[in-house]
Amino acid sequence: MVDVAIIGHGVVGSGVAEIIINHNELISQKAKRQINLKYILDIRDFPDLPYSDKFIKDFDTILNDDDVRVVVETAGGATFAYDYVKACLLRGKSVVTSNKELVALKGAELLKIAQDKNINFLFEASVGGGIPVLRPIAQCLAANDLIEITGILNGTTNFILTKMIKENMQFDDALSMAQRLGYAERDPSADIDGHDAARKICILASLAFGKHIYPEQIKTDGIRGMLLSDVELASRMGYVVKLIGHSKVLGDKVSASVCPAVIPTGSVISNVEDVFNIIKVRGDAIGDVAFYGRGAGKLPTASAVVADVIDCVKHLAARKYLFWEDGDKDYVVDPDSVAYDYMIITSVANADALATLGCNTVEHNGSVAGIVEKTSKNDITTRLQKCGINDYRVFRVID
Amino acid sequence: MVDVAIIGHGVVGSGVAEIIINHNELISQKAKRQINLKYILDIRDFPDLPYSDKFIKDFDTILNDDDVRVVVETAGGATFAYDYVKACLLRGKSVVTSNKELVALKGAELLKIAQDKNINFLFEASVGGGIPVLRPIAQCLAANDLIEITGILNGTTNFILTKMIKENMQFDDALSMAQRLGYAERDPSADIDGHDAARKICILASLAFGKHIYPEQIKTDGIRGMLLSDVELASRMGYVVKLIGHSKVLGDKVSASVCPAVIPTGSVISNVEDVFNIIKVRGDAIGDVAFYGRGAGKLPTASAVVADVIDCVKHLAARKYLFWEDGDKDYVVDPDSVAYDYMIITSVANADALATLGCNTVEHNGSVAGIVEKTSKNDITTRLQKCGINDYRVFRVID
Repeated sequence: MVDVAIIGHGVVGSGVAEIIINHNELISQKAKRQINLKYILDIRDFPDLPYSDKFIKDFDTILNDDDVRVVVETAGGATFAYDYVKACLLRGKSVVTSNKELVALKGAELLKIAQDKNINFLFEASVGGGIPVLRPIAQCLAANDLIEITGILNGTTNFILTKMIKENMQFDDALSMAQRLGYAERDPSADIDGHDAARKICILASLAFGKHIYPEQIKTDGIRGMLLSDVELASRMGYVVKLIGHSKVLGDKVSASVCPAVIPTGSVISNVEDVFNIIKVRGDAIGDVAFYGRGAGKLPTASAVVADVIDCVKHLAARKYLFWEDGDKDYVVDPDSVAYDYMIITSVANADALATLGCNTVEHNGSVAGIVEKTSKNDITTRLQKCGINDYRVFRVID
Repeated sequence: MVDVAIIGHGVVGSGVAEIIINHNELISQKAKRQINLKYILDIRDFPDLPYSDKFIKDFDTILNDDDVRVVVETAGGATFAYDYVKACLLRGKSVVTSNKELVALKGAELLKIAQDKNINFLFEASVGGGIPVLRPIAQCLAANDLIEITGILNGTTNFILTKMIKENMQFDDALSMAQRLGYAERDPSADIDGHDAARKICILASLAFGKHIYPEQIKTDGIRGMLLSDVELASRMGYVVKLIGHSKVLGDKVSASVCPAVIPTGSVISNVEDVFNIIKVRGDAIGDVAFYGRGAGKLPTASAVVADVIDCVKHLAARKYLFWEDGDKDYVVDPDSVAYDYMIITSVANADALATLGCNTVEHNGSVAGIVEKTSKNDITTRLQKCGINDYRVFRVID
């Protein structure tokens, strides 16, 4: 029998507890050992739950109980969660987390401790909720050099953009609807300013390319205040606006960014709507592969956590191949200095100036858009300023 | 050091040999043991290859060499390949194969031997080429009941249909082009009559639902002679025609089929074009997840085989969770007796009769189409015959 503890009985943590208790026979059979949920650490009381006897308030109870071999961290944040996870790993307990902030900030350090202790630190649920993506990437990696990752990584912003694209909703109305439906927090900044997607691209790129990328190294632009007229103009040109996390190998460095981008209609990514996520990975041998599904939600995320728990229990004395080195401050290139294709949208008064950049322009409703090819964003800024254009929006073209 | 042998130096087998030899350090590091390619069994000679000294012609050399712990079978077919794979497993050697015919016909039997011998029988490359799909399904399974699988499983037919949809090519011209480009064999029947897709849905559904489904239990319709006018009419109605492999749990039985289907434009599957594949899996907790990529090709397929080899070498004494029971003849329900939505296309002369089935009809170029909801194909056949309609095509609606 293997004892398991859960830290944090929130949405995901309670889902994990329910699955472990209600499907105990099935998951124990899959893990080839009896799994026993022994403790749940939470500052709150839950007297009415059928498993209310498992709640504790003192972390040391978990830490000092050597029968607890696997700890699930679903408390969130990177302060207490970091202390708890690190202490558990140092004590030789495998840890499973869905906490993307923690992994994006401290992944390399925690993976190193797990390696030294020959235990597992798994976090499949930290990216893409229930979509299996980190393990398949590790598997692709076994016989491929991965070179690029592109993803719709945040369901809330994808929901908002889908409402703008399909129903011509204004940004604020779509955000309010997302909040009403429980897809967006009351303070939506982690989603709409791109920070959530940035943490996920950190984790994906760190794993795929082998070296930690930290959130502060990721150029992050969100979709706050996205103009419906820009979305409509992009549509007229055959593109949809999506918030894209992207990272690409450039020699021994990488570029990494989160930004609103335009995707040609008809590509697989362009049809990923509502709260769905997609993660596309390019390898030298395999070409493009992609993983699609709901990126969040209590049950999908909890089921991914439980799959990791099963894996930890099955491999108490063997490590899964999931590792990356620490990064360094020169590893990540400013994406605005890298040449991409960009769509520029500005006031129709600037149409002639925009045309001098060498792009065909399309006008709609007082705005004009054009696409410049293989130019850095820094270059575009300089050239637009020379033309006297200061009020414009730039969208990277991604296919 | 672990010795590995390859049976069959064709497209995939030669790719596997090249990867094992050219990337030996990297893959040995990932396997945590030195991997040594010791033998390649082929009836042909390859005197000019840098590794020509590895070729042998006698299978017993592999079988009787106890240092060979992992055997790669890339010979194809289910006669010799079956004998070789079975003999290796019985001798306690782990086996990796890309041979979908073998797995679809003999999977349950071979998995049982592997289980009894506590070794691995892995076949990730048999479905979806380099797309990681079987392992992620096994992973999803750990905390989900899977209930439905839908896929574009054959790149050749998807290429042909894409040419018909996008470039208004006739079927025969698109097939010729696929043959010229090397996507289709000179005898294209395995692809265009749906048998290749049927083998893949056998493997996927056997794994996902836990019980072997055999190819002869799968109702299989291909796209041979697909009418361009039908493809165009479906487009006018907002659908694309795709060859779909599908299987669904119905109580303690399953339905399973390969058939031309119509998919609403705008769904993720509808945008999967050319030789790309997609496999969508529905679980009770996870909802829909999908895996996308090139379903064939030397390097993607070989890299998936090599990833399995690495896994075998890492787990010489531990089994991966990949197993299903033997099936039985009553397990698979006739899909034509199950209610689905269908699009019916017939001559415009039958428009009034078609309308009596209760569907709104659309006419184009001498044909008429309508959609009937939640009706079995058997029922549709009976009702159309009653109306005196004998010349018609039926496409299942899948989204």
